[in-house]
Amino acid sequence: MGVDQPQAVIGVVTISDRASAGLYEDKSGPAIEAYFNKILITPFRFEKRIIPDGFDSVRDTLIELVDQFSCDLIVTTGGTGPSPRDLTPEATRAACPRELPGFGELMRKVSLDQTPTAILSRQIAAHRDKCLVVNLPGKPAAIELCLNAIMPAIPYCLDLLGAAFIDTDPAWVQTKRPVNQ
Amino acid sequence: MGVDQPQAVIGVVTISDRASAGLYEDKSGPAIEAYFNKILITPFRFEKRIIPDGFDSVRDTLIELVDQFSCDLIVTTGGTGPSPRDLTPEATRAACPRELPGFGELMRKVSLDQTPTAILSRQIAAHRDKCLVVNLPGKPAAIELCLNAIMPAIPYCLDLLGAAFIDTDPAWVQTKRPVNQ
Amino acid sequence: MGVDQPQAVIGVVTISDRASAGLYEDKSGPAIEAYFNKILITPFRFEKRIIPDGFDSVRDTLIELVDQFSCDLIVTTGGTGPSPRDLTPEATRAACPRELPGFGELMRKVSLDQTPTAILSRQIAAHRDKCLVVNLPGKPAAIELCLNAIMPAIPYCLDLLGAAFIDTDPAWVQTKRPVNQ
Repeated sequence: MGVDQPQAVIGVVTISDRASAGLYEDKSGPAIEAYFNKILITPFRFEKRIIPDGFDSVRDTLIELVDQFSCDLIVTTGGTGPSPRDLTPEATRAACPRELPGFGELMRKVSLDQTPTAILSRQIAAHRDKCLVVNLPGKPAAIELCLNAIMPAIPYCLDLLGAAFIDTDPAWVQTKRPVNQ
Repeated sequence: MGVDQPQAVIGVVTISDRASAGLYEDKSGPAIEAYFNKILITPFRFEKRIIPDGFDSVRDTLIELVDQFSCDLIVTTGGTGPSPRDLTPEATRAACPRELPGFGELMRKVSLDQTPTAILSRQIAAHRDKCLVVNLPGKPAAIELCLNAIMPAIPYCLDLLGAAFIDTDPAWVQTKRPVNQ
Repeated sequence: MGVDQPQAVIGVVTISDRASAGLYEDKSGPAIEAYFNKILITPFRFEKRIIPDGFDSVRDTLIELVDQFSCDLIVTTGGTGPSPRDLTPEATRAACPRELPGFGELMRKVSLDQTPTAILSRQIAAHRDKCLVVNLPGKPAAIELCLNAIMPAIPYCLDLLGAAFIDTDPAWVQTKRPVNQ
């Protein structure tokens, strides 16, 4: 890691009552970590959390990861459906004042090619200060599908937000950084 | 109808100044009823309303149909365009705190394959307690198109919301209920 | 211009700190003007503004263009990305109480066919009284792409909002005005 290239901090937040209570092995968080370990070629480290569903738990965790742990990018998994305990989008909105609707639209679109129940996902992306927060589905199979769709735009998004520089292995993800006008 | 399978209650709300004043025959409500009669294979009954356009009329009808008449699913028709009296989405949002953006995105997408003015539709889906509320367009031709697109996901959505069990005739609609992880 | 066909007023608002300070030549505003000059066959005139990025500047300009200058249609360019100074969607929302989500969805979709960073655009359309306001991207190359996608629906949208009648040269844009039911 060079002096000019600070280490990016990537928050990985698994949101699940069962996983946080130890009743269920978290498979989604490790799937996300494996994905970033595979595709990123710039220095980074993870901040990992496994927390219960709900509004306060998610909002407070996101705020803490940005304000105290200086995350540049946070991906959540779980809590985006219509069940009463699925409040990840609401909590993300509460922690992150500004939404980026194109992320949710695209993730639902690619998921819809796999299953008609993709329209039930209420996942959003938004940012708090320099940190981009992206809601991913809870199911490991859907995670890589969504990340592959949005990942080419994320490094440039972090540039615009003033977050750490990240770059991807073009064998896996073709990062797009538009040339300035 | 078996003891273990309570009858689902489906609200059908036609929103039209002209139809509610008797100046125009409601064709959209009957089109919706014919659709559900054709595709559903589980017991259900309708609660039908024909009401004027506007914010209060729609909001109050939706609240009444959920809180007093125990609807599991409500479909509205009309009032989703940009005209000054088209306030169905705003009223739906007022009655239903939690939105499901994927429904509106998909209904606009399939409608856009038919006509470029589909982008003028502001239709949403949202839920109040266990009841899913879906805004359909006012024109009968567009109703079946939209219902065919979203219907495969609706029975599972009602499961997650805790509403009545419904199922569809696979000859018409292939309901998708994902296997739990 | 006939007596029965009042001249439409089209606001063109370039939102750019650099262009408004004279540090950069505005290419987006002229690209928009050239587009409307090419495709419209009904009488119209422009109200042009070049203003800095930011919330107040954009909101106040939009309100003034509608309330004082009677615009029927306003297109903005710039300020829709995730950068801290990109506040055009928020300002549009503040000036225009009612959104039309289909415009942003479609513009992102067609832009996404060109570049994966299209999901970073937060552009919306909304209306204030009879005036439709559409956020376009800042880059001239993306402007015509977006306008071509949404333009077929705009004349009918203005009809429904009670704005001036406009029509397009079918050699360039096929305007769709649905026959009433």
